[in-house]
Amino acid sequence: MQSHRNSKEHDDRILAGIQPVATALKNKASSIAMIWVATGARNQRVKDLALLAGDAGIEVREEIRERLDQLAGFERHQDIIAQLHKLELPAESDLLPLLGRVSGDPLLLVLDGVQDPHNLGACLRTAEAAGVHAVVITRDRSVGMTAVVRKTSAGASEVIPLFQVTNLARTLRALKKAGIWIAGMSGQCGENLYDCDLGGPLALVLGSEGQGMRRLTGELCDFQLHIPMAGVIESLNVSVATGICLFEIQRQRKAG
Amino acid sequence: MQSHRNSKEHDDRILAGIQPVATALKNKASSIAMIWVATGARNQRVKDLALLAGDAGIEVREEIRERLDQLAGFERHQDIIAQLHKLELPAESDLLPLLGRVSGDPLLLVLDGVQDPHNLGACLRTAEAAGVHAVVITRDRSVGMTAVVRKTSAGASEVIPLFQVTNLARTLRALKKAGIWIAGMSGQCGENLYDCDLGGPLALVLGSEGQGMRRLTGELCDFQLHIPMAGVIESLNVSVATGICLFEIQRQRKAG
Repeated sequence: MQSHRNSKEHDDRILAGIQPVATALKNKASSIAMIWVATGARNQRVKDLALLAGDAGIEVREEIRERLDQLAGFERHQDIIAQLHKLELPAESDLLPLLGRVSGDPLLLVLDGVQDPHNLGACLRTAEAAGVHAVVITRDRSVGMTAVVRKTSAGASEVIPLFQVTNLARTLRALKKAGIWIAGMSGQCGENLYDCDLGGPLALVLGSEGQGMRRLTGELCDFQLHIPMAGVIESLNVSVATGICLFEIQRQRKAG
Repeated sequence: MQSHRNSKEHDDRILAGIQPVATALKNKASSIAMIWVATGARNQRVKDLALLAGDAGIEVREEIRERLDQLAGFERHQDIIAQLHKLELPAESDLLPLLGRVSGDPLLLVLDGVQDPHNLGACLRTAEAAGVHAVVITRDRSVGMTAVVRKTSAGASEVIPLFQVTNLARTLRALKKAGIWIAGMSGQCGENLYDCDLGGPLALVLGSEGQGMRRLTGELCDFQLHIPMAGVIESLNVSVATGICLFEIQRQRKAG
């Protein structure tokens, strides 16, 4: 059980795989404490990353592949692992000041209980690519910042401001008071996404994969919107729905 | 190794989990050969599905949970598994006749080498929801119709026409000859998605997760487009990119 305990301990500080390590190195090298490379790794990109890390003053260690398997907790690490400094999430109280410093209309993504780490990672990646200013997740009922989340986010977890809040209703009320519209994404209720005016300061709220958003969260939304579905499938993957909505919001903002 | 061999054998014919089984039962009950329910399953939705299946004339068997684990090849089957009839994919030669029967402009999704079964499943789910008329995948370099694909597609694999082609270049040439525009999604090349006119008969082509599309595939595209990225992240998950493009195409078609 030693290896399991080990991998749990460092769970949120291990970033495995070429692309995630490359993104972290490029965008936030200061987030990396150390890099492990498998002995005898042949991939040129792995070698290049090790050199790049060395140049950036980051310690690079060689270890046998089995040790990397153990560190990553899975085998698809592609012979390179970064140990990150502990991810210091900003305090809840920093959310409104951060939005105050945004130029233009703030755009937030709020996830009420996303539980699959791949989904949360893909949502962070999508949100960062769409230019979201901050992501809010719940402390309970939601997966935390695990290694899988950080890897799936392709580096986004290191750069996007992420707020883990204990009381989502309180946060939503504070956002409303600050003049931010709260839009809930529901299954087939509310307005058609493409008929909504989505300009202005906005927080887009999505619920968990199975149950959707909680009743109280839904009640705090100023309006509900849905993605019009053309086939028999009734719902989309949460990260796909997030992408469709966020990029439509940005399209409208640029067109408007 | 017995259980592993077993699960491999039936790999593409096992649909596990409440939502996938419910979708198949609702939309294409004829695709289901048999249903297994875990002995002592308490979830009311599992019980309801078993009753519904019985009413539809489908054989329902009770088995211990460990047997279901074995059949599914994983443990997240939620106490219900459907064994599907073999998925009879249409022949390549049926693609053009099918498009000829479409009312309005045909819309296709072409995936050149998507290898992760979760990604392929999410792409099928997204394509079906966006009203795509057919999906084309390559026989080589692409994951096939595994249980994970069928589950992740949330039932879409049972209803969307899916063509597995041996020579993608030949298929693309045939589509072009039939008057269908071929649009390639690339990283940051080509036109901004939101500046393109995406009306008319169209096939959207995406490449594999790591390498993108092959050179020849890219050359056969009439034009390339990209999703404008606002942050430091350079690419999106393939199913998220698929969703953003397909729903933008449908928005333009409805607005146009």
